[in-house]
Amino acid sequence: MRVAIGQAGGPTSVINESLASFVSTFSDDDIYLVLNGYEGLATNQMKAMGEMQRETIERSRGEPGAVLGSGRYDFSPALQKQALAYLMERRIEALVFIGGNGTMSALHAVQHLAEEAGYPLKVIGIPKTVDNDIAGIDHAPGFGSAAKYVAQSARYSKMDLQAMRNFEQVRILETMGRNVGWLAQASGYGMTEEAGPDAIYVPEREYSLETILGDVRRAWKEKGYCLLVISEGVTINNQQTALSNSRGRTILGGVSKVIEEAVREKLELVSRAEQLGMNQRCYYPAVSKVDQQEAAAVGTYAAKLVQNGESGFMVGVHRHDTMNYKAELTRVPLQIVSDGGERLLPDTYIEERKAYNEWLEGIIDLPPVSTQTQAGSSSIL
Amino acid sequence: MRVAIGQAGGPTSVINESLASFVSTFSDDDIYLVLNGYEGLATNQMKAMGEMQRETIERSRGEPGAVLGSGRYDFSPALQKQALAYLMERRIEALVFIGGNGTMSALHAVQHLAEEAGYPLKVIGIPKTVDNDIAGIDHAPGFGSAAKYVAQSARYSKMDLQAMRNFEQVRILETMGRNVGWLAQASGYGMTEEAGPDAIYVPEREYSLETILGDVRRAWKEKGYCLLVISEGVTINNQQTALSNSRGRTILGGVSKVIEEAVREKLELVSRAEQLGMNQRCYYPAVSKVDQQEAAAVGTYAAKLVQNGESGFMVGVHRHDTMNYKAELTRVPLQIVSDGGERLLPDTYIEERKAYNEWLEGIIDLPPVSTQTQAGSSSIL
Repeated sequence: MRVAIGQAGGPTSVINESLASFVSTFSDDDIYLVLNGYEGLATNQMKAMGEMQRETIERSRGEPGAVLGSGRYDFSPALQKQALAYLMERRIEALVFIGGNGTMSALHAVQHLAEEAGYPLKVIGIPKTVDNDIAGIDHAPGFGSAAKYVAQSARYSKMDLQAMRNFEQVRILETMGRNVGWLAQASGYGMTEEAGPDAIYVPEREYSLETILGDVRRAWKEKGYCLLVISEGVTINNQQTALSNSRGRTILGGVSKVIEEAVREKLELVSRAEQLGMNQRCYYPAVSKVDQQEAAAVGTYAAKLVQNGESGFMVGVHRHDTMNYKAELTRVPLQIVSDGGERLLPDTYIEERKAYNEWLEGIIDLPPVSTQTQAGSSSIL
Repeated sequence: MRVAIGQAGGPTSVINESLASFVSTFSDDDIYLVLNGYEGLATNQMKAMGEMQRETIERSRGEPGAVLGSGRYDFSPALQKQALAYLMERRIEALVFIGGNGTMSALHAVQHLAEEAGYPLKVIGIPKTVDNDIAGIDHAPGFGSAAKYVAQSARYSKMDLQAMRNFEQVRILETMGRNVGWLAQASGYGMTEEAGPDAIYVPEREYSLETILGDVRRAWKEKGYCLLVISEGVTINNQQTALSNSRGRTILGGVSKVIEEAVREKLELVSRAEQLGMNQRCYYPAVSKVDQQEAAAVGTYAAKLVQNGESGFMVGVHRHDTMNYKAELTRVPLQIVSDGGERLLPDTYIEERKAYNEWLEGIIDLPPVSTQTQAGSSSIL
């Protein structure tokens, strides 16, 4: 059986786990490695699997990034057709991609094109995302590790700010997440409204600058400092903030700076905006063990689906039990993932930090902050 | 014996270790805790040591921030006099502060004022800094952990960038360090010129925008992407970049953004500036064990100096042997620290990454990247 596998979209700390587990169940002759994501598919950048490639991929389990090359690409219908032609030419029987929402839609599109062309191509998707915006599943590998980094950063940054409050009163941490608030909400992990960030802003809600400045004023009056966490995709006064554009994709970012400036001007407090940046998806020491195991497991499961001749599915991670975390892998039709669009953070998780924290606990691999050592409580001020 | 101890300046991940070790050798009656750094000293914010304070301080060993409150303060001669008056009123016999360059000069000044006033105040300093700019010593506690975070961030960010190069070609990481390049230089830890960041810019040198753009062009042509690391204090075309001003102190930052924009405009490459931010000094999981041990050791050593009736010294960390790292604690006259000014990164360490890496190896608690797994080499591209 001849299988082509690639990685697409922004890397996560554990995307290479999925790849390594997938290829480890096939012999060299079966595997073609697609380089540089969909661009590689459209431009016929493939490599046959050999001993050296196998070693490199196995070693990459302990590394972030995407060992095949990933990237973003405007994968138009014309380019999809081109990609299919190359796959047919190489007599590829199954196409597997590790990616997010866009990747699953693209796989779905290629599947249709193959059907139209009467070419029997099997198509399987493996989920990954730090944003956790893939529909049809509980969560995707990659998210747990990013959430852990965000939760730790917020916890420790609050202690740092508290110590510095006579010099700097307001800090605004900006997280990734694109149009969903899962990652930003993780900044309150294990903490109540009182002990965690003083406010968390998510893209599922709209905010006015007035509301935000009100939150800052309140927290500052009460304790002398204020830690805010905001997701890059948040709309303030009906406006999203973008850093730049590349390949038809808007790079969100900079909303924390908008708040920083408003706090300085209107409240006359010293304020600092910080983007948590690429470390959210690549700071390897923050990897969550559960996340890593699940990333490996979805790779193995995808291999089984391919070997069983299945097609048109993404591997799904479902949750059996939240209080005593247990996950089950399933197959989710690509149609459902594609139709589902971006998976928003539900209202209950926005409104009740505790409910969200319980959901997160099983996958973040980080002890919740105990009442005794809640951020800020171990200061003698 | 009645001792007042405080923490000043930006916190490090291990500053509480020094405090906890210091106070653990004294009984409750001996210790007065100065809150909020020099501001607390000038405004008489002190707390007697009790069971609760002791527990909180002991617990703070595992936490970043500064448990007594730290902060920055414009400690003018008039305020120093005020502080001395409060110390005399409380019959404090020894004043101990954990801090950086500014703190040591301030201690020295208070010592002189006490001598002038005929008040027998003993004065001892405990070093801490993530910048490593304290004169008269090999390195200060706090630096090793920050260096570890920077080295890891650069290593992992390079893997992430390599995977994304069809979308984003240039990434510029900005480190702390104020006017010295020790921390920025740590980004090349364990890596040769080829495998590490494509260039590291330190404040000890001056650069033109042309030089930097030339470095980017060269790296991009050769491999298709480029990772730069720049210290916040670097001067480009004779200009430093500042974020803001607070309490008479310039907050450096933003120089990476200047490069990002120039790369976008002049080279038409997609480029992203990232400030590594406060996590450099507070992301606790990156703590270097050696750094932590040394932070505890300087606290214990300072207690011994106080108990021996010494005065006018900062605890010093000296190095016996680089290849087989071994440190020795000593006492350094505050006069020497104060006269020494900011300790620059020596030319050899700027010019030879290998020499600097050998110096760093003993204190960073991170295995060097082996030839086999050098950043970037485990890609099959």
